[in-house]
Amino acid sequence: MVELSEQKMHHVVVVGGGFGGLYAAKALGRAAVKVTLIDKRNFHLFQPLLYQVATGTLSPADISSPLRSILSQNKNTQVLLDEVVDIDPQQNKVILKAQELAYDTLIVATGVSHHYFGNDQWQPTAPGLKTVEDALEMRRRIFMAFEAAEKETDPEKRKAWLNFVIVGGGPTGVELAGAIAELARHTLKHDFRSIDTTEAKIILLEGLDRVLPPYAPELSAKAEASLLRLGVTVKTKTLVTNIEDHRITARQGETVEHIPTRTVLWAAGVKASAMGKALEQRAGATLDRVGRVRVEPDLSIPGYANIFVVGDLANFSHQGDKPLPGVAPVAMREGEYIARLIQARLKGADLPQFSYTDRGSLAVIGQNEAVVDLGFMKFSGAMAWLIWIFAHIYFLIEFDNKLIVMLQWGWNYFTSNRGARLITGEMSSMLTLDVDVKSDYSGSVSNKAPVEVN
Amino acid sequence: MVELSEQKMHHVVVVGGGFGGLYAAKALGRAAVKVTLIDKRNFHLFQPLLYQVATGTLSPADISSPLRSILSQNKNTQVLLDEVVDIDPQQNKVILKAQELAYDTLIVATGVSHHYFGNDQWQPTAPGLKTVEDALEMRRRIFMAFEAAEKETDPEKRKAWLNFVIVGGGPTGVELAGAIAELARHTLKHDFRSIDTTEAKIILLEGLDRVLPPYAPELSAKAEASLLRLGVTVKTKTLVTNIEDHRITARQGETVEHIPTRTVLWAAGVKASAMGKALEQRAGATLDRVGRVRVEPDLSIPGYANIFVVGDLANFSHQGDKPLPGVAPVAMREGEYIARLIQARLKGADLPQFSYTDRGSLAVIGQNEAVVDLGFMKFSGAMAWLIWIFAHIYFLIEFDNKLIVMLQWGWNYFTSNRGARLITGEMSSMLTLDVDVKSDYSGSVSNKAPVEVN
Repeated sequence: MVELSEQKMHHVVVVGGGFGGLYAAKALGRAAVKVTLIDKRNFHLFQPLLYQVATGTLSPADISSPLRSILSQNKNTQVLLDEVVDIDPQQNKVILKAQELAYDTLIVATGVSHHYFGNDQWQPTAPGLKTVEDALEMRRRIFMAFEAAEKETDPEKRKAWLNFVIVGGGPTGVELAGAIAELARHTLKHDFRSIDTTEAKIILLEGLDRVLPPYAPELSAKAEASLLRLGVTVKTKTLVTNIEDHRITARQGETVEHIPTRTVLWAAGVKASAMGKALEQRAGATLDRVGRVRVEPDLSIPGYANIFVVGDLANFSHQGDKPLPGVAPVAMREGEYIARLIQARLKGADLPQFSYTDRGSLAVIGQNEAVVDLGFMKFSGAMAWLIWIFAHIYFLIEFDNKLIVMLQWGWNYFTSNRGARLITGEMSSMLTLDVDVKSDYSGSVSNKAPVEVN
Repeated sequence: MVELSEQKMHHVVVVGGGFGGLYAAKALGRAAVKVTLIDKRNFHLFQPLLYQVATGTLSPADISSPLRSILSQNKNTQVLLDEVVDIDPQQNKVILKAQELAYDTLIVATGVSHHYFGNDQWQPTAPGLKTVEDALEMRRRIFMAFEAAEKETDPEKRKAWLNFVIVGGGPTGVELAGAIAELARHTLKHDFRSIDTTEAKIILLEGLDRVLPPYAPELSAKAEASLLRLGVTVKTKTLVTNIEDHRITARQGETVEHIPTRTVLWAAGVKASAMGKALEQRAGATLDRVGRVRVEPDLSIPGYANIFVVGDLANFSHQGDKPLPGVAPVAMREGEYIARLIQARLKGADLPQFSYTDRGSLAVIGQNEAVVDLGFMKFSGAMAWLIWIFAHIYFLIEFDNKLIVMLQWGWNYFTSNRGARLITGEMSSMLTLDVDVKSDYSGSVSNKAPVEVN
C-alpha cells in the first residue's frame, strides 16, 4: 500500500542546492509530493561571504551547511550526491552520472560560473570565486604572496609580489579589494620583518565608468571613496587585454599599462552552467548572451510546463527593463514561488506570474564601511555596515545555528584579527622562490570542472 | 651600528613550529638573541584535536594559529616559510630550499610522521593523521562512504562502505573510533533515506592486548567499555597483515579474518622526520628503532653542544625506564628548557639536566566519555570528559583567542551537531560509484611529502 502511494506521488526533482534549489526543496517539505534534491556537493554554500574565506576571516564550514542536515526533517525529501549530465524532457528523465531519474516536475537551479570573455587561458593565472576550493586557492595565493615577498631580495620582484590586482568592480571585486587592503594595512602589519605590508598595492580594475555598476551612482561614488581611504587604487573604464604569469595588461582609453603582479583575482564575469545548454539542445529553450535560460512569466521554459529554471541560471525579463539580477534573494523567492505553484497546480488551481520585490542591495568595503541601497533610501558608512552584518547573520542562522561562529567573526572583524589564514594544499613546490605559484591551480577542482552545479 | 650589533647577536635557529619549536621560540622572545623559526607551513597546528577536524566537528582554522601572529610581538624573531633540506654542523649552517642560514644554536623540532612498518604501499589506502590535509582527506573519506552507501544497491558492497576500520588503539585511534561511532549513531541518524547509518560498523584493531597501551590497565579497560557502549568493535592482539582497496586482512593469534571495507584509517605507528637522518649522517647522532635522535641529558646531541633536539623527534631516555612519550606537554617543556639553557649559558652559567614532570594523560572516547590519568589518580566518564574539554580549551586560548570557537565546539559536541562535515577537494570522479575513492589520495600533500617538518 505504501509503495503504491509512493509510486503515485508527484515527484519533484531539484537540480542544485544553492539558494534557488534549496529554498524550493525547503518549501516543499510538508507538501504531498516526493522531492529529490541533487547536488555535486554535500553542502549548501553561503556564497555572499565566500570572499571572507578567501581573505582568511572565515572557514569554509562557517558559511556552509550540510544539505542533508538542512533537509533531514523533511521526510518526503531525499538528497542525492550526484551530477546531472543530461536531460530527456520527452521522457521526463534526468540522466545522472550513476543513474537515471524520472520526474514529474523538474526544477533546474545550477547557477553560473566564471566567465573570461573568451580568454579561458587566463583562468589558471586569475582564479575566480565560486566554490570553497576557489576561495581556499585565493587565500593560498594572497598569503603566499606576502611570504614570497618576505623572502625576495630583488626589489622589483618583491614589488610584483606585493601588487594585488582584482579584475571586476562588482560587489565581489569591491569586497575582495577592501578585505585585502585591510589585511595589508592592519592585520599583517607587525607580522613580517623584511617587508612593510602597508606598501602592498591593491588595484581594482573595472570596465565601466564606476564601481558597483548595478547600484545607484551616488553609492558607487561613496564605495569608491571608501576604497581610496583604505588605500585601494581604483581604475574605472579599464579593460584587461592580457594576463600573463608575472603581469597584467590593461587599457584605459588609449593608454595601455603593464602592471607587474603575481596575484590576479578574477571577479568580472559569469557564464551559465552547462544545464542551460542541455535545456537548449533537448527542450529548445532560448539562451541569452551569457547562456542563461529565458523563462516564461511562471519561470517554466516554453513548451514544457513542468520544467522550471530558478536562480542565477534563469533570465527572467518580465519585470522592469532588464533581467532580474543574479543575487541570492531573487533565487530564494523564485524557489519558493515554484514550490507554491506546484502545490497550487496539483490542486487544480494556479498562481499569478512570478514577481520580485527588491528589498535592497548591500556591499561591504571594509571595517565600518559598507553601502546599502534600499531603493527608497541609500546610505553608506558604519550604519550601512551594521545593516550588512545583521542581514548576513540573520540569513546564516536561519537554517543552521551559526550564531556563535558569527559572533566570533564579528569580533575578529572588529579587532582586525584573521585566524583563518592557513595556507593549505600542495606546499613543497612553493618553498623555492623561482617556482610559479600559479601553475598549481591547474590541478584544482574548478579548473577541471569549470561549470558548477551548485 | 645597529647592523654590527645584530651581526654579533647570538643567532638561534629553530626548525619546526610544532609544540617543541614554538615554545622554544616563544620563551626566547625577550632574550638577547636573534631567533629564526623555520617551518614548511605558515601555521602552528594543535594536533591533539586533529581527529575532530577529521570527523567534521572542527574546521582546520579552529585548531591552527598563524606562526607570524603568535610571534609578531617578538621583535627579535623572524618566521621563515621554508624547508630545511640538510645541515652542516661543522660550518654551523642549515641548508634551506631557497637559501643557507648560519646559526649559533640550532634547535631541531621537526617531529614525526606515520609509520607503516615497512608497508608504505598501504598509505594511499589507509591514510594517517598528522596534517590538516590528512584530516580533510579522512573527513572526505568518512562522509563519502556514507554517501556511497546511500547510492549503493548491492547489499554486500553497501556493507563494505559502512565498515570503518581504524588501525591502532592509541589515543588517536580510540578518539577516531569514538567520534565515527557517534557520527553514525547520532549525528547522521536522520540524514539518509536508503541506509540506516546506525548499522555502520566501526572496528578498532590493536596489536597489543589492550587499547591505550601507554595508560594504566584499569583505564584501558574503562576506555574499551566506553567504546563498546558506543557500538565500536574492539579487537586487541590483532595484527594487520594486508590492506587492499576493498578489504583489510587481520590476524588474531591463529585466526585470519578478511574484513570488507572501503575506509581504513591509520593510527598505528610513527616514524621520525628526515632531519633525524640528516643529524645521523652529518653529526654522527645515534637514532633509535623508529629514527628518533638519542639526546644527551641536556637535549643536545653528543659532540655538538649547540645542536638540540626537542619534541617527538627526540629520544630522551635519562628519566624512567623508557623514553619520554611523544606528546605535546613533553615537547613544550623541552622547548622551554632549551630557551632557558641558552640564556643561562650566554651568561656563563648552566642548568641542571632536563627533567619532565608528568601532569597526566587524557583521552576522549565520546560525548561524556573520557579517561584521565593524573598519576596519583585515575578516572573516567563525564568528569574526565569535562577535564579533557577544559584542558584543551585552556591550551587553545593560551596563544590565540579561540574562546568563542571553543564555545561553539562545546555546544556542537553537547548537541551532536557537526557543522564542519563538508566534503571538499576533487569531486567529479567520485560521483560514479565504481570509481575508487581511495585512488584520489595519491595526489595529496602528505603522500608526496610523507615527512612533515611541523
